[in-house]
Amino acid sequence: MDRKEFRDLASPEEAREAIRSLSLEGGIDHVSLADARGRVLVARLDAELDVPGFDRASLDGYALRARDTFGADEADPAELELAGEVHAGEEPDVAVGEGEAVEISTGAVMPTGADAMVPVERTTAAGDSVQIRTSVAPGDNVMFAGADVAAGERALGPGTRITPRDIGLLSALGADDVPVRSKPKVGIVSTGDELVRPGEAVDSDRGEIYDVNSYTIAAGVEDAGGEAVLYPHAGDEQDEMERVLREAAAECDLVLSSGSTSASAVDVIYRVIEEQGELLLHGVGVKPGKPMLVGRLEDSAYVGLPGYPVSAMMVFRTFVAPAIREAAGLPETETATLEGRMARQERYDEGRLRLMPVGVVRDGDGETLVYPVDKGSGATTSLAEADGVVEVDPGTDYLETGESVTVSLFSPDVRPPTLLGVGEDDPTLSRLLDGLDNPRYLSVGSRPGLRRLREGVPDVAVVAGPTERDVDAEELGSWEREWGLLVKPGNPDRIDGLADLVDEDHRFVNRTTDSGLRSSVGAAVADLAEEREVERHAIVDSIVGFDLGLRAHESPARKVIADEADAGLGLRETADRLNLGFVSLGTQPVRVLANPDRLEKPGVEELEAALDDVANGR
Amino acid sequence: MDRKEFRDLASPEEAREAIRSLSLEGGIDHVSLADARGRVLVARLDAELDVPGFDRASLDGYALRARDTFGADEADPAELELAGEVHAGEEPDVAVGEGEAVEISTGAVMPTGADAMVPVERTTAAGDSVQIRTSVAPGDNVMFAGADVAAGERALGPGTRITPRDIGLLSALGADDVPVRSKPKVGIVSTGDELVRPGEAVDSDRGEIYDVNSYTIAAGVEDAGGEAVLYPHAGDEQDEMERVLREAAAECDLVLSSGSTSASAVDVIYRVIEEQGELLLHGVGVKPGKPMLVGRLEDSAYVGLPGYPVSAMMVFRTFVAPAIREAAGLPETETATLEGRMARQERYDEGRLRLMPVGVVRDGDGETLVYPVDKGSGATTSLAEADGVVEVDPGTDYLETGESVTVSLFSPDVRPPTLLGVGEDDPTLSRLLDGLDNPRYLSVGSRPGLRRLREGVPDVAVVAGPTERDVDAEELGSWEREWGLLVKPGNPDRIDGLADLVDEDHRFVNRTTDSGLRSSVGAAVADLAEEREVERHAIVDSIVGFDLGLRAHESPARKVIADEADAGLGLRETADRLNLGFVSLGTQPVRVLANPDRLEKPGVEELEAALDDVANGR
Repeated sequence: MDRKEFRDLASPEEAREAIRSLSLEGGIDHVSLADARGRVLVARLDAELDVPGFDRASLDGYALRARDTFGADEADPAELELAGEVHAGEEPDVAVGEGEAVEISTGAVMPTGADAMVPVERTTAAGDSVQIRTSVAPGDNVMFAGADVAAGERALGPGTRITPRDIGLLSALGADDVPVRSKPKVGIVSTGDELVRPGEAVDSDRGEIYDVNSYTIAAGVEDAGGEAVLYPHAGDEQDEMERVLREAAAECDLVLSSGSTSASAVDVIYRVIEEQGELLLHGVGVKPGKPMLVGRLEDSAYVGLPGYPVSAMMVFRTFVAPAIREAAGLPETETATLEGRMARQERYDEGRLRLMPVGVVRDGDGETLVYPVDKGSGATTSLAEADGVVEVDPGTDYLETGESVTVSLFSPDVRPPTLLGVGEDDPTLSRLLDGLDNPRYLSVGSRPGLRRLREGVPDVAVVAGPTERDVDAEELGSWEREWGLLVKPGNPDRIDGLADLVDEDHRFVNRTTDSGLRSSVGAAVADLAEEREVERHAIVDSIVGFDLGLRAHESPARKVIADEADAGLGLRETADRLNLGFVSLGTQPVRVLANPDRLEKPGVEELEAALDDVANGR
Repeated sequence: MDRKEFRDLASPEEAREAIRSLSLEGGIDHVSLADARGRVLVARLDAELDVPGFDRASLDGYALRARDTFGADEADPAELELAGEVHAGEEPDVAVGEGEAVEISTGAVMPTGADAMVPVERTTAAGDSVQIRTSVAPGDNVMFAGADVAAGERALGPGTRITPRDIGLLSALGADDVPVRSKPKVGIVSTGDELVRPGEAVDSDRGEIYDVNSYTIAAGVEDAGGEAVLYPHAGDEQDEMERVLREAAAECDLVLSSGSTSASAVDVIYRVIEEQGELLLHGVGVKPGKPMLVGRLEDSAYVGLPGYPVSAMMVFRTFVAPAIREAAGLPETETATLEGRMARQERYDEGRLRLMPVGVVRDGDGETLVYPVDKGSGATTSLAEADGVVEVDPGTDYLETGESVTVSLFSPDVRPPTLLGVGEDDPTLSRLLDGLDNPRYLSVGSRPGLRRLREGVPDVAVVAGPTERDVDAEELGSWEREWGLLVKPGNPDRIDGLADLVDEDHRFVNRTTDSGLRSSVGAAVADLAEEREVERHAIVDSIVGFDLGLRAHESPARKVIADEADAGLGLRETADRLNLGFVSLGTQPVRVLANPDRLEKPGVEELEAALDDVANGR
């Protein structure tokens, strides 16, 4: 099938306009008071009754005629005849005549004839009469009918977002059927044979991965005031996909498709749009987000999001979420912004608006440093490590180090981290971080950690094993960890050390050169080479898999468990936790190095105190 | 029963301390990913697998050995033999040997032997072979296993509040069973024979009112991250109340009682606490909120809130909500604050911390004016008319006009009104306000409206009928309204005008002297007195009910409908809408008068434009 051609990329403003032109608005829901919080009132609500509905005693005491108390005081009380009593929630069966008083409780109906009341504290009961030790004016201590809200009064305007305070007003009016705007119903269709729902098992050999977009976009839809409907994903089988798309279009105000990376999925979408809808726009000049589609699918609006999770979320947040908020009747979010300086130069010359996810960190002077967060377009985790977005104009070629930028935080309640650490991945460190207030840690490995510390972005770097060169840093603390070979339980291959890997035919799994463990195993290789008086590469070449480096400290262990390897580089702690055998090759220090300018930063001080506790065995 | 005496009021800090000492924390919930948004992670979550779980092609194209492309370019492509294909979601059944390439789709598993891939755009298919028009390095266009998240890596820290971005990370890890903090379960027990649930009918003759506290506090509990449980209210019958209290205490982490104004309810609470709990504190030096109770009820925490809705909410917000947030694991709200100047003097000398609800309005210079909102302690609506709270120190005797104060907004998303109007209640006005962005209108009547305009707080006053003296104001617009007597449908009493009320024995219902309608009826009385050459009071005294003034424009009509009156003062529009008879007595102007300093204010300009539309019949 030939695809309709959109030769020029649309501008971001055209994309916003196209989405705005689709009507996402739902109808009216009638909800009970208990479900009204956060919803948006669809029409003005006028009071249909007076609140209170009667003249009401404000205190416990006596209802009476004010003129009977004139001149009364502590020294010369007025003595009134007790004519009866009225409690809250009952109809008075007594009237107040001249010289009479009626005992009344807070909230009770004022009896006929009474025009004021005196609180019990200013009275003395005396059998059939009561002494009133103060004088009152007509109306004193009485709340008149309608004084709070009067019938016919405008109570709440259309578009009011209902807060607990409005719930108070609605309940005072007895409203239990509140007309609110329906939440726009947003169908989420994710396609792709490789996608597996979280909770089920993935088969990595078949290239299966968990479906990230469906749940992430659904949460975004709900954040924006919509109702998310997840459709079962359809694989790449065309008939099935068409069926799911049509079902979603029939049931929802907006259909979002995402997740599929296959050309055939795009073909189905094109065909359904062409047969039963309209394509308004294909391709937008933003990065990420270029392949966005906007159109109509049968009676529903349709937006096709990019397949990669980070791209999908950035496009959703920038273009789709505002339209959902508007349809839901929610005010535009007051975007919380932060001014900061670029922590390093960032080149960019693609001529498209760039939505750049960034993290922020405060430097020693309390100034905000901004650094791009980018783990590659397939990454799912970048956004969890970012605080907000910097929009970079198409005309900008690069952002200079120190250049001032504005960060739109992902939401107003984003709290930038109190501590930014980078470096080695380590179980002791993970526990330490658990005790801190709001840390962020990027486990990039020891070598990249040191490099970044030198560049001045993070507060601390965590470095394991021998390091090549030093950096200007303050050591906050350190601990030792035992490292070696993780082998199958009981060590059935009887691997005793590195030499066995060289001399025998075991499959080994290494760590990447970024890891401090790789540095230590490199040093051990050098020692063995010296001992045997051979070249280092001769040792390395004899170890099957020495060049296969995995990034995380548990990954080699998992290869051993899966019987894809006989020995993996790792920690004793990992072996113990995963019930593997362990062949010790030594210990190495793990050092926490701080940027000297950041020692006074509360997050750094908090970490230092936690390290002291570790050192003292607490 | 003797009540335990707490002679001195506790300080606000002691009250906070007492509530903090009660443990509100619930346990752990396991929720699915779809329900995890907004919840708080209870423990650290480490990655249990590599993401991706395999080396993954980042684009559609060809997997190959990088060294086979060395030197290739557009002019001199490398020709490789096509060895097969791999799609996303399937296990490769082919390996890549020297000089070979395998067609691969985005997201598919890299086949054995391949160490890089080339995107399809840089290739030319040629039957059994493919021309590669670029050279690549090992690793190009491949996302390696674990590059996104590596097994064993610390993914999310304990206490993380789960946002859509975190959902992305959780779904990438395949987590569908997320351990989160249970929401603290908060039981709400409201007591009082006079309380009726919204949605049911109130009998005002019996002094019944709608239960405001239950729903308002429940909404507040949910705003603070708790789960609210409403217990059926118990009336004042002691055994039943005790049963409900014990049931709530057995089922909840915290029990809040509120709503009852009766002494017997307090007695039951005292007894249950004494038998099965502990009273920590009775009475706090705050206004409102003095009668607050803090203690334990069986295994539950207990706080007794004041009975009046505004007091209950202020105490809840100040003392209870922060404890619920903490137990729910939510960070303290960053209280949004606003600096402003007091719009008028406010006296205060009770020696207790005062929590003063206030509204805010911007003056002509964009400065924030702050005015207290106080409709009396029984009022339920004050909070809906307020934007936040000013805390006034016990030592402060008064706040001076112009004095600078800090307003804590009720929530960070409170939007101060764009227009503050006061004055007459009118149906045309209500419709006008519906079209404005975010207006606030206090229908205090014409006379008080004029007075407040003179005091300089509101932007506009709406004044109906004749006014006694003028005020320095700009008339933005006006309309006429027809007023007269609202009578039963078909006018069975044949009331023709004011004279019939004087001469015959009909029951009349008037409006309060604040209303512009009252001014017009007063003028009509004066005319009749002149015509008959009698004193004005002779006319007034002859009209049954002339002195009975109701506050709102619909209230007299409702008295006629309820057959509590034969004629009521009102508008033709009201008569038409409520299907009543109408006896016209004339028309009166309704004028919108603006503070001359505020004419440039966007909200005032918006109102002026809307008035022009009315004048032009749009």
